[in-house]
Amino acid sequence: MRTQVAIIGAGPAGLTLGRLLERAGIDAIVVERRSADYVLGRIRAGVLEQSSVDLLRELGVGARMDAEGIVHEGAEMSFDGDMLRIDFADLVGRRVMVYGQTEVTHDLMDARSASGALTIYEAENVALHDIDGPNPKVTFEKNGETVEIHCDVIAGCDGFHGVSRASVPERSIKAFERIYPFGWLGVMVDQPPVAEELIYAHHERGFALCSMRSHTRSRYYVQVDASETVANWSDSRFWDELRARLNPEIAEQLRTGPSIEKSIAPLRSFVVEPLRFGKLFLAGDAAHIVPPTGAKGLNMAIHDVKVLGEALVEFFADKSSAGIDAYSARVLANTWRTERFSWWMTQLLHTFPESGDFGRRIQRADFDYLSASRIAQQSLAENYTGFRLSAG
Amino acid sequence: MRTQVAIIGAGPAGLTLGRLLERAGIDAIVVERRSADYVLGRIRAGVLEQSSVDLLRELGVGARMDAEGIVHEGAEMSFDGDMLRIDFADLVGRRVMVYGQTEVTHDLMDARSASGALTIYEAENVALHDIDGPNPKVTFEKNGETVEIHCDVIAGCDGFHGVSRASVPERSIKAFERIYPFGWLGVMVDQPPVAEELIYAHHERGFALCSMRSHTRSRYYVQVDASETVANWSDSRFWDELRARLNPEIAEQLRTGPSIEKSIAPLRSFVVEPLRFGKLFLAGDAAHIVPPTGAKGLNMAIHDVKVLGEALVEFFADKSSAGIDAYSARVLANTWRTERFSWWMTQLLHTFPESGDFGRRIQRADFDYLSASRIAQQSLAENYTGFRLSAG
Repeated sequence: MRTQVAIIGAGPAGLTLGRLLERAGIDAIVVERRSADYVLGRIRAGVLEQSSVDLLRELGVGARMDAEGIVHEGAEMSFDGDMLRIDFADLVGRRVMVYGQTEVTHDLMDARSASGALTIYEAENVALHDIDGPNPKVTFEKNGETVEIHCDVIAGCDGFHGVSRASVPERSIKAFERIYPFGWLGVMVDQPPVAEELIYAHHERGFALCSMRSHTRSRYYVQVDASETVANWSDSRFWDELRARLNPEIAEQLRTGPSIEKSIAPLRSFVVEPLRFGKLFLAGDAAHIVPPTGAKGLNMAIHDVKVLGEALVEFFADKSSAGIDAYSARVLANTWRTERFSWWMTQLLHTFPESGDFGRRIQRADFDYLSASRIAQQSLAENYTGFRLSAG
Repeated sequence: MRTQVAIIGAGPAGLTLGRLLERAGIDAIVVERRSADYVLGRIRAGVLEQSSVDLLRELGVGARMDAEGIVHEGAEMSFDGDMLRIDFADLVGRRVMVYGQTEVTHDLMDARSASGALTIYEAENVALHDIDGPNPKVTFEKNGETVEIHCDVIAGCDGFHGVSRASVPERSIKAFERIYPFGWLGVMVDQPPVAEELIYAHHERGFALCSMRSHTRSRYYVQVDASETVANWSDSRFWDELRARLNPEIAEQLRTGPSIEKSIAPLRSFVVEPLRFGKLFLAGDAAHIVPPTGAKGLNMAIHDVKVLGEALVEFFADKSSAGIDAYSARVLANTWRTERFSWWMTQLLHTFPESGDFGRRIQRADFDYLSASRIAQQSLAENYTGFRLSAG
């Protein structure tokens, strides 16, 4: 087989890139190790920045999002029960859209099927070859046969554990990482959300987040030690712990029910540099991970492939390599800005075993400054709703 | 002897409080362990916030400051040589005044002498008695004789190592502290400053600061390990190190000369809670220490005694204890806000032995966000020029 761009991974990064290339008349094949159902079964974030919303609309996959997504003009913060609303619309004139990553992926899959563009699911033993040479190719096994895709460019959109980043020689790549000593225990429940907006809560017992997927489906999280397992957390223990971390009036409003999903996600900050290796370009979780505080992972992935897609259009249509040459630096500038914000929000809202009394007071002072200063709130709002350099 | 307020310490906190009380017709005696010349010989910060400038003017001690002080509308930041100007005037409509702490103290001493208010210098073995009882008093030895001052209130303005805080029973006070693994090596030189504004510089070799006391006297600092001694630092080694940490074009402009003062100050964040113990009120460095990044120490002290002075006027003139009852909470709110900012600026600009590669990238991302966002610059500017709650 032959294509212009081999896209590894059919998550939102790979599918958005595929859509972008397809609309520009560039040929691409998406190769995915898992089945479509498996990909859709992964529960991920659900907050889209304006620029992500704009791109999905531009790509013609925004109709269901616009019908079912919920526009949020602000979010609530809670610190040991003290509430503070961050009014994004008033502070920086931007909004966010609550619409699950699973739904975004679904819409992109549907569009891809409709257009007949090729996605190969359940591709086993995917391997990248000659990424730095003149004839890169991707091989995999499907139904017992080995398949080869010859291509001009490989887009590594296959996540943190994917083969793309692992195919880069160690000497050519540098990783930057912080692992947090805790994770998020998340529960999905078919109940209306406790509040109209998200609530990010710090409490001396740990962080909690009240989020949602729709007006009838809620997503709640509590910070747990990295050593915890789901088996330790009955639904009732989860609800009790969540209530204990919220403002009592909010806690009273909480509508609980049997969990329809329960899982623990570790928290990690991770970036590799650079993002290009010959003909291979890394994007999304293959390139960087943020802790979920601030809901940046999906938005970063969409931003990455927007930059990559535009660079590839320049490369194939305009015969200019300026865009692909600038890809790594442009995406990294945005990556580090977003890593900084996600790290800051994580620091502000979680409890850290190593913080002494002084550190805890500084954390409280951070919240108090945020409460007292419109400028501090604007800074949070511009980052939360999506801070971009004009270039990116 | 008998007075209404016994003020311990003749630094800027004690003398400003004395001036404030004197103008309100409240009797106070200042007791100082050192000589006036010793107090004036201490080299300290030199940047006054607008609110400090306003208070000194209000107290009739601003004439020389207004004649000799230098108004700064901004400051320069440098990160591995990349320069960024923070334009306070444009960003938040406020300015700062460069005028040495020594000069402030001098002006306050002169005003106090002129008015005939009593200051007792070289008071040995100062001790506080019955701070929590109905008849507080201060004793000390002077010329071999023990002197007693009976008073209504004691103001502890005698700094970090003073007797006031040490007189509080341990069970009644809680300290919050962070000690940094480095200090500032400072050099004073009679040369015009390298730039019209201050330059706060981060460099992989460590922090540096180009400051000034006047148009002909400059003050420079470099971050050094906590174990360093002045004896290791010849003038030429100091100048070489400073140049290496600055943007090369700035470094070329540096006018060096023999140091007229050279010393190492450790960096510490420190706060005690509460600030009132019966009749004793702590203010300034006796209550809290900030690292000098951001030049907040003197300004916090002036803010503390403004709040304390007004509370004491309420207490003595209006017979209301509302102000003194609120003193601790009001000052602590401002203290923690300022501690947070000084800590943040310290984190941004110094090198930390424990930062890994990820931490260094986040530090750079902090600077890059500051460079890219007007809102981030406004946040720095509102804090640098003096963030106050309307109440404080």
